[in-house]
Amino acid sequence: MSRSSLWSGCTPDADAFSTRHIGPRPAEIEAMLRTVGAESLDALMAQTVPSAIRDEGPMGLGDAMTETQALAYLKAMADENRVMTSMIGQGYYGTVLPPVILRNILENPAWYTAYTPYQPEISQGRLEALLNFQTLVADLTGLDIANASLLDEATAGAEAMALAQRVAKSKATRFFVDEDCHPQTISVLRTRAEPLGWELVIGPVEALEPGTVFGALFQYPGSSGQVRDLRQPIAALHAAGAVAAVAADPLALALLASPGELGADIAVGSMQRFGVPMGFGGPHAAYMAVRDGFKRHMPGRLVGVSVDSRGQAAYRLALQTREQHIRREKATSNICTAQVLLAVMASMYALYHGPDGLRAIAARVHRLASVLTAGLNWLAVKVETTALFDTVTVEAGESAPLVLARARDAGINLRDAGNGRIGISCDETTTPETIEALWACFTPDHERLRLLTERLDAADRLPAELRRQAPLLAHPIFSAHGSETDLLRYMRRLADKDLALDRTMIPLGSCTMKLNATAEMIPITWPGFSDMHPFAPAEQTRGYARLFDDLSRRLCQVSGYDAVSLQPNSGAQGEYAGLLAIRGYHAARGEGARDVCLIPASAHGTNPASAQMVGMRVVVVACDAQGNVDIADLKRRIEEHAERLAAIMITYPSTHGVFEEAVVEICALVHAAGGQVYLDGANMNAQVGLSRPGAYGADVSHFNLHKTFCIPHGGGGPGMGPIGVRAHLAPYLPGRPEANGRDAVSAAPFGSASILPISLAYMLMMGDAGLKRATEVAILNSNYIAARLEGAYEVLYRGSKGRVAHECIVDLRPLKASAGVTVDDIAKRLIDFGFHAPTVSFPVAGTFMIEPTESENMVELDRFCDAMLAIRAEITAIEEGHLSVEQSPLRHAPHTTRDLAETGWDRAYTREQGCFPRGVGHGDKYFPAVNRLDNAFGDRNLVCSCPDMSTYA
Amino acid sequence: MSRSSLWSGCTPDADAFSTRHIGPRPAEIEAMLRTVGAESLDALMAQTVPSAIRDEGPMGLGDAMTETQALAYLKAMADENRVMTSMIGQGYYGTVLPPVILRNILENPAWYTAYTPYQPEISQGRLEALLNFQTLVADLTGLDIANASLLDEATAGAEAMALAQRVAKSKATRFFVDEDCHPQTISVLRTRAEPLGWELVIGPVEALEPGTVFGALFQYPGSSGQVRDLRQPIAALHAAGAVAAVAADPLALALLASPGELGADIAVGSMQRFGVPMGFGGPHAAYMAVRDGFKRHMPGRLVGVSVDSRGQAAYRLALQTREQHIRREKATSNICTAQVLLAVMASMYALYHGPDGLRAIAARVHRLASVLTAGLNWLAVKVETTALFDTVTVEAGESAPLVLARARDAGINLRDAGNGRIGISCDETTTPETIEALWACFTPDHERLRLLTERLDAADRLPAELRRQAPLLAHPIFSAHGSETDLLRYMRRLADKDLALDRTMIPLGSCTMKLNATAEMIPITWPGFSDMHPFAPAEQTRGYARLFDDLSRRLCQVSGYDAVSLQPNSGAQGEYAGLLAIRGYHAARGEGARDVCLIPASAHGTNPASAQMVGMRVVVVACDAQGNVDIADLKRRIEEHAERLAAIMITYPSTHGVFEEAVVEICALVHAAGGQVYLDGANMNAQVGLSRPGAYGADVSHFNLHKTFCIPHGGGGPGMGPIGVRAHLAPYLPGRPEANGRDAVSAAPFGSASILPISLAYMLMMGDAGLKRATEVAILNSNYIAARLEGAYEVLYRGSKGRVAHECIVDLRPLKASAGVTVDDIAKRLIDFGFHAPTVSFPVAGTFMIEPTESENMVELDRFCDAMLAIRAEITAIEEGHLSVEQSPLRHAPHTTRDLAETGWDRAYTREQGCFPRGVGHGDKYFPAVNRLDNAFGDRNLVCSCPDMSTYA
Repeated sequence: MSRSSLWSGCTPDADAFSTRHIGPRPAEIEAMLRTVGAESLDALMAQTVPSAIRDEGPMGLGDAMTETQALAYLKAMADENRVMTSMIGQGYYGTVLPPVILRNILENPAWYTAYTPYQPEISQGRLEALLNFQTLVADLTGLDIANASLLDEATAGAEAMALAQRVAKSKATRFFVDEDCHPQTISVLRTRAEPLGWELVIGPVEALEPGTVFGALFQYPGSSGQVRDLRQPIAALHAAGAVAAVAADPLALALLASPGELGADIAVGSMQRFGVPMGFGGPHAAYMAVRDGFKRHMPGRLVGVSVDSRGQAAYRLALQTREQHIRREKATSNICTAQVLLAVMASMYALYHGPDGLRAIAARVHRLASVLTAGLNWLAVKVETTALFDTVTVEAGESAPLVLARARDAGINLRDAGNGRIGISCDETTTPETIEALWACFTPDHERLRLLTERLDAADRLPAELRRQAPLLAHPIFSAHGSETDLLRYMRRLADKDLALDRTMIPLGSCTMKLNATAEMIPITWPGFSDMHPFAPAEQTRGYARLFDDLSRRLCQVSGYDAVSLQPNSGAQGEYAGLLAIRGYHAARGEGARDVCLIPASAHGTNPASAQMVGMRVVVVACDAQGNVDIADLKRRIEEHAERLAAIMITYPSTHGVFEEAVVEICALVHAAGGQVYLDGANMNAQVGLSRPGAYGADVSHFNLHKTFCIPHGGGGPGMGPIGVRAHLAPYLPGRPEANGRDAVSAAPFGSASILPISLAYMLMMGDAGLKRATEVAILNSNYIAARLEGAYEVLYRGSKGRVAHECIVDLRPLKASAGVTVDDIAKRLIDFGFHAPTVSFPVAGTFMIEPTESENMVELDRFCDAMLAIRAEITAIEEGHLSVEQSPLRHAPHTTRDLAETGWDRAYTREQGCFPRGVGHGDKYFPAVNRLDNAFGDRNLVCSCPDMSTYA
Repeated sequence: MSRSSLWSGCTPDADAFSTRHIGPRPAEIEAMLRTVGAESLDALMAQTVPSAIRDEGPMGLGDAMTETQALAYLKAMADENRVMTSMIGQGYYGTVLPPVILRNILENPAWYTAYTPYQPEISQGRLEALLNFQTLVADLTGLDIANASLLDEATAGAEAMALAQRVAKSKATRFFVDEDCHPQTISVLRTRAEPLGWELVIGPVEALEPGTVFGALFQYPGSSGQVRDLRQPIAALHAAGAVAAVAADPLALALLASPGELGADIAVGSMQRFGVPMGFGGPHAAYMAVRDGFKRHMPGRLVGVSVDSRGQAAYRLALQTREQHIRREKATSNICTAQVLLAVMASMYALYHGPDGLRAIAARVHRLASVLTAGLNWLAVKVETTALFDTVTVEAGESAPLVLARARDAGINLRDAGNGRIGISCDETTTPETIEALWACFTPDHERLRLLTERLDAADRLPAELRRQAPLLAHPIFSAHGSETDLLRYMRRLADKDLALDRTMIPLGSCTMKLNATAEMIPITWPGFSDMHPFAPAEQTRGYARLFDDLSRRLCQVSGYDAVSLQPNSGAQGEYAGLLAIRGYHAARGEGARDVCLIPASAHGTNPASAQMVGMRVVVVACDAQGNVDIADLKRRIEEHAERLAAIMITYPSTHGVFEEAVVEICALVHAAGGQVYLDGANMNAQVGLSRPGAYGADVSHFNLHKTFCIPHGGGGPGMGPIGVRAHLAPYLPGRPEANGRDAVSAAPFGSASILPISLAYMLMMGDAGLKRATEVAILNSNYIAARLEGAYEVLYRGSKGRVAHECIVDLRPLKASAGVTVDDIAKRLIDFGFHAPTVSFPVAGTFMIEPTESENMVELDRFCDAMLAIRAEITAIEEGHLSVEQSPLRHAPHTTRDLAETGWDRAYTREQGCFPRGVGHGDKYFPAVNRLDNAFGDRNLVCSCPDMSTYA
């Protein structure tokens, strides 16, 4: 008997996970195939995916692992990382994530599976948490208005530079960068400035020549730890019509005069040390705050207060029209996603500690750094830093390697700042024992150390003139939830106001709200992944190195590419990095003049913005009536720009939800003209296991790991957008200054490293077969919805054989014409049925784009289709004149308990019809907290921090 | 400068945790003291706690740790435990807790902070989960009705014995016990039988003499692994009028003919291996199922289906009048709490895997055991077990120690069954690699092992005549949630129907629903605590040993006792163990005739039941008008029973919520008469830091760790009831057969060991000062409520200076008289305000017992008091004749969305008044899923498993 047959029946079912990830049961799949009129999944795929791009072979990922096996596989990686006491600083600090926030925010699907709050009525909870975040940042920075949030401190610095350029009176093209900025910030600024033609001047503050720049960025405290009074240089910038930005440490601001007090126009920084683990670099929420005059120019998402249809205060994203509609022609930002989950955590950390607690933490960190410094002085170590908050830099000279090594032996990482300089940063987790161990790294003389602790007297080292005078966290919200019981209930209350994947399907086209399996989430909070500093020595981070290799290899196998960069930490960042690679490639071949980027009319708004940002000119290619790229027009554009053609950016399957037949031809045409093909990976989940962009002609793509590969949306971030490239572009992938001297696109060398285990776990547990089947079922689910809605709604685009891809667009414009019903009416009415609306008016105004994903089963799909059909019946009633649209439940949607409790109900429909339409039961009905939002009111009356408590009364 | 002053300001605030555990902020405490008319907390304590028992000194627990420090302290303990592959079996098995259940049930406060579902309208979620559990157990065991749930398999076996005695036609006093029962079960049966005068006959099944016993308990499969056909002995028992009980492994029942098919009357067992970690012995849910005729005699909680006031199906605890009212005079059970959280987990495990998955797991486990056995045979190892499911016993003779040692070296624990016998159990986590490693433990001959895996052919070893014929998990609920997305939503939907501490105060008198801090919950799911077998060798469990020592020492410091047993796993079990100790003490001194137990009229129902169970006669002592023990009556009783006086059981502070002044005198009187004092520790939380029972006269107490020491209630269990004793009783604490040869009260040597870190963490993070302050604030909060309700409601009992203790009883009987309003009307009306009712009609019918605990802040207390006052105003409206009680919102409470949506609203109050009474907002209103339950209907029409799906339609 062979070994394998001896053990047959002795190992767990390897498909157990994929059958749980994939929603429909086998019998449901059969039934759905009958409804769509396909004989089998294979037959349906043959009708959907053009044979020219079909890739039948296995991808090479092998068999699936069980959840237990995958967790063991990842645990071995985490165990290869060595968790040390990090005193490296440089923007990343040890912090204590309060357990109650860990469990009830970060590990709670009600928070992590939520989508971006574009539908405010079902998002009041996280909008409130984000408003708290904005209020927190505005308070700390002393500026008028803060967004929520940016990707990391370095890109936030780049956004500050771009904002400065947009608003500065000065017409200079130079930008000054304080040399005491964090190196990763300077690197990203370099990357971002060059294609836009801005010259960076990097030097000491004293070297600033205000008249020659449109703005400047200072670090406060400096990366070296030095605290400088920036009032004078800021005033000088203002006098010259230039803009002053300050990258500030938010914990330091609990003790230090705020950037606003110093006169700064813009403040940026990272909220990481507000309870968010270092995670080898991310994800964390970065912030930006500006003075009032700049608010309409600020990038990123902004939560504001408005009113609902009953005049009740309600939250929503303010100035939302900026987003997805970033000025295509002059974009200096392609910011799209945010870091909502991390911003929520940071805001809850502030509520948890309150003003007194936060001030105590800052004071303790400062006290430790002061004692450390005094001790170093006592030991005659040469300390460079004079005024400081938490960080000192010492000149250890030739003994630097010895000190660094001794510290490592003691389990402590210090910052090797080069040239014999060593940086030491204290943080919330630093203890007196650590400081004593550090002193011992500078001298082996025990007697001296004993005397030191006996005799030392240490003064604080904050300059008196830079002490914070303003009150800290003055808004009552920061003092309202001081007990754990109360904070727990507050977090639950907020979560309950929101609809996330843990309660309902979220059929958002292009956003792929699939299952985020719990097993995938488990590893990210293991200390071996979460407690790692991004610039820890390589010999301590072998587990991460193995994780990156493994994940990159699998992404190559899935996509057909040859190399991957994990650095871009959002899809838009991935686009930017991919286009930079194309740009670098042309330049290296002496074809730097190629600067035309072709983009079809149906593209994501971030596509042209990203092209602008790498200095390319956007040329729009028309689409035909079927929504496909118009090949004739494409040929014309290529001909027009042949010599200058740099690239085309296409999305595949298209944003119209169709596998265009001509994609191979499109790639060939562009290549023939010397251009490169950027294939937007937003819809990669329709291809995995069926086709590989790298194999059928694309040169580079980004992968939205938060779509196809199961990283949860977190209520609007973190995202993650690694890119894959064919071999010829590999040399032009984002750099890692500390490793290869080339400049980076993100602050951290591997982006949001700590969430990468999610995507790897997914691939491990699905295996080749599971991944392929997921794609097939996603396409089946979408075709099932198209089939069930047929007759009631028109599906706008289909492939040549009548099939849609993984998503479909239904046209609602005829209903506007026939009944006056708007897309919003239907979107809000779906809330009454307990659903999040599909994607609204993208890529075509007046439509829904519906993407069910593979994770929804037939019961849930039917529930959704039944709701859509019931709504259609309500529209028919209007069309037939039984009631006007103003009288209909559609216009009053969404309904709240305020409607239900109305005493003088005089509507054209009953309470039951309004609030409990067909299929909605009483036992577990979801009610939104507010009625329909008035967006225009909020934009006219912009309020972006917590209202006074009187408002709540 | 001294070291400590050098580091002043450098360490975190040690009180940070206690200020978060304690709800009111300092300013609130000041305001509340003003309301109650006390100058300070000290002054209030002086007015509340009799000076005779005040214990001013520190307890000796020292300073508080921060959460980080406490977690590090516990982590060091967990790391001292060595996690091995356990193949010990004996009732405890490796299992995989599905991550989605781990995170969303076990680690989710919505589930773990819920209370016992006595208020069914706000408990429909967990009642449904428990009904699933009962359906699961009934299906597996092939019996008609199952409860939900019992404490552990051993005590469930004892309950089966007691049930058999109650229902058997046979009047015999002997009970037969299969010698192949688990040793811990036999030990507990011994403990339980002896005081009741039942004789155990322990032997092989063949030795059963049916005519001589009232019943028998068999193990199926046997503890040795042997699967026997029990049909014949069961039939013989029936013929003799005796009752047949079977302790059955639920996973085996997926493949084996069920106990019901074999003819058994009762089945018991542990659901541990349905996804619940071993946890060094607990907590796990045990089950009991019986045939229909016995259902009204079954101990423990039973969920049943009834209807609400609208006739909708609704769940509630059935036959609830049994509980707290256990027949005081003839009790053979004192079962009170259950293991709800664990039962819910086990039921979700069944839903997660479904019938096919569960059968596959059982088949795989069996296959592994079959291959193992075949290999052992091939290696000429003497295998004792012939027919088996998962366990084999081998006769290794003199080589047994060597085999056991080799296995341990390979990281595997086997069962040392004594006399050269070794037990080996396979489970869900067993792999082929483990089996191969095991074979190698029996022979060092690599070549032979190689040949073995090449040549082995292994037949299955289930007897054909014992294969399960019945369908498995036939109810559709077990096939309805096969995708993770769907199961996640189902769990969320259930959780949302229930009110737990994460949403509102639960002011249950005597139940102490205080904060269960997240930091306390973190350690229990660490593998070092959760993946330990209770009978693992001592050298592997040093961490647990240290935990037990540490916790026991602190419990002694808090209580003034000298020794602690952690074995009793509920409060009632603690009572039982404590009385056994008293009994043992008297017997050892030749005073075994002492058998009278004095119990005040106000006692918990479990007190007299426990006394009966240890063979004592209960004599009731009267209480005076103030609710205190009537000293004159006490003296009379002592005099009447002087020679026979064994003990008194008192609760302190009394169940009337008062610190009786006479407690020292009571103890002295009893001692003088030769009796012992059992002090029920249910209200220990009013004493911690203020007084110590062991110091003022008590001899033994149990500590409800799930009340005073923060183990969450889990929706109705786990509980934990260690006992503390003075030194003279220490020799009579529960035994550990495997360690000291004395019999036990619980299956596991240290009860529900894995949740003990919760209580230790609490004590570590509170320190001496924090614990004392918690008690003070708990008493303040209670007096604050009494003060705020004054004038509207009468507080029934107060201490000599007008103060209440940590809880207070308000008298609602006058409102029945004046307005016809019942206690239930007010309890249900509180739901409309978003509250869980206080304890209803205990210890005095027609009253509320209100206990706010220290964790509620003034805002929440005011919200509750305002609700009570608003309700009083509604009652006044009835008293004044504005409407009848039948017309009032009180009688219609609780209101649901069905009420709100009613079309023809013709009530005497508005929808808003009914559903959104004063202070209840629209944004986060809680609606119960059902209207008021009809309990009588359900008890008349007993349905205790999931209704047919048609019912839902």
